[in-house]
Amino acid sequence: MRRWWRTGATLLLGGGLGASVNRLLGDRGRQHQEENPGLLSRVPVIPVPTVQASELTVSPGSSGAVMKYGFPSLANIKTRESYVTSYDPRTRTASWVIERLSPASLSGPADRKFCDFKEDESVHVFHRATSADYKGSGFDRGHLAAAANHKWSQKALEDTFYLSNVSPQNPHLNQNTWNNLEKLCRSLTKRYLNVYVCSGPLYLPRQEVDGKLYVRYQVIGRNHVAVPTHFFKVLILEQADGRGVELRSYVLPNEAIDEKVPLERFLVPIETIERASGLLFVPNIMKRTSGLQAITAK
Amino acid sequence: MRRWWRTGATLLLGGGLGASVNRLLGDRGRQHQEENPGLLSRVPVIPVPTVQASELTVSPGSSGAVMKYGFPSLANIKTRESYVTSYDPRTRTASWVIERLSPASLSGPADRKFCDFKEDESVHVFHRATSADYKGSGFDRGHLAAAANHKWSQKALEDTFYLSNVSPQNPHLNQNTWNNLEKLCRSLTKRYLNVYVCSGPLYLPRQEVDGKLYVRYQVIGRNHVAVPTHFFKVLILEQADGRGVELRSYVLPNEAIDEKVPLERFLVPIETIERASGLLFVPNIMKRTSGLQAITAK
Repeated sequence: MRRWWRTGATLLLGGGLGASVNRLLGDRGRQHQEENPGLLSRVPVIPVPTVQASELTVSPGSSGAVMKYGFPSLANIKTRESYVTSYDPRTRTASWVIERLSPASLSGPADRKFCDFKEDESVHVFHRATSADYKGSGFDRGHLAAAANHKWSQKALEDTFYLSNVSPQNPHLNQNTWNNLEKLCRSLTKRYLNVYVCSGPLYLPRQEVDGKLYVRYQVIGRNHVAVPTHFFKVLILEQADGRGVELRSYVLPNEAIDEKVPLERFLVPIETIERASGLLFVPNIMKRTSGLQAITAK
Repeated sequence: MRRWWRTGATLLLGGGLGASVNRLLGDRGRQHQEENPGLLSRVPVIPVPTVQASELTVSPGSSGAVMKYGFPSLANIKTRESYVTSYDPRTRTASWVIERLSPASLSGPADRKFCDFKEDESVHVFHRATSADYKGSGFDRGHLAAAANHKWSQKALEDTFYLSNVSPQNPHLNQNTWNNLEKLCRSLTKRYLNVYVCSGPLYLPRQEVDGKLYVRYQVIGRNHVAVPTHFFKVLILEQADGRGVELRSYVLPNEAIDEKVPLERFLVPIETIERASGLLFVPNIMKRTSGLQAITAK
């Protein structure tokens, strides 16, 4: 049975551990309902830029519109034609990328045959990934903001080919389950007024034989581009009738996944992603709506 | 023989790989002298705040003064009484901490017996280290900005006990070689007008049996505080006669080190730290001086 719950103004701030790869599956379906309503007033909350109704009049995928529910962090922000990203110079890939999808942004004349992956020259050469780093690594250049989400403009489509919008991704995952999740995001634009999608890498700890927890991830190429252990996608789904927003958050391991496994199996509580990534989503969303539904595991 | 070289306006921007633990020793003494003078004009440089001569009239260890040579990154900056830090919410420890030492900041009435480690409440509870995380871990709570550098003010001394200024550190390293390096920094205040010290953690890759490079580090406690594989200290030494600055950069492994090994053995080219940490030091320093001497390995 799928469980939906209404968090309202009281958030689910569990006292649980940060996410570890071993605990993700175990966490699913468990509800840390330790309530701590005073907490938000004590901790810093990343400011939410004010976005007026006029956002609805800008270009379909305009990056300005993705600010509506705030940014999960404020480091090294880069604004592109149709998405906004925060770059991590240590791992040589994004910390997160936010897009806003709507039927208008998904269709258009843009053609990816005119696109090729390119270095992000706004990143210092010491901290910049190149296509050579990926060559022979066994990993795909996996888009974070998906190319097919930005067909409304050739420039927007091309911007998704910056290597700062890319992470080393298991080819099977990239071409199957991750691709299916991207398709799901696009299909949700039929049901919701707007679909905000935030994607990024995770580096989750795992218990080793000595009983201790270790984060371990490969780095590839001359520039030591980090290979995430997992990827997240956080979907902020804006209801058409102003009833608020729904939140769906997924974590997928960076490995081949049998396509028969339903995507719902990868739903996790948003807290899992907030703890593991160092990012915050809910405090910002709560500034914009008191009606927040979190959809987690079955 | 110790090698000193004058970089002047042309920086040593080697085409080498990022630092890996295996290569650190090998890199020492090798000079990547591939010159690329046009590079600095192409890449973004973190702005250097303007600091006037009036900085010399402020309190001995005032945090405003540490800005003189810019910040190595701009994410999550926190200004304390006597140091400035950038916090990494994913690893639950600082990315870097900058202090300015002078004879006046090193002496005073402050007493550490009135100090105790404390949580940094400016950090969200999901991303905050606690003393409980360290308990039973086998690691010391290792100061990044050293307590003994801030005796000029009780508040300044107390600020060094925030757990955001602390990383899990091998106890032998903390109490011996790292402590010796801190003492060296203090002793240099006798020879230089000002001693700027930037300290931080590193997570360096290592080649494993499959021939691939992996970053692997332990995380401790309920909050998964990252245990750095190495620590760096970058010393910006301001010459009294206005002849410019000297740069010394050290990398020490987070393990017991025989005290007989001289500290000079841990000198590395600054590029090693800039590549591995995702930070930049030299572009900022070069905005303030054309006379930069880098002191690296013997």
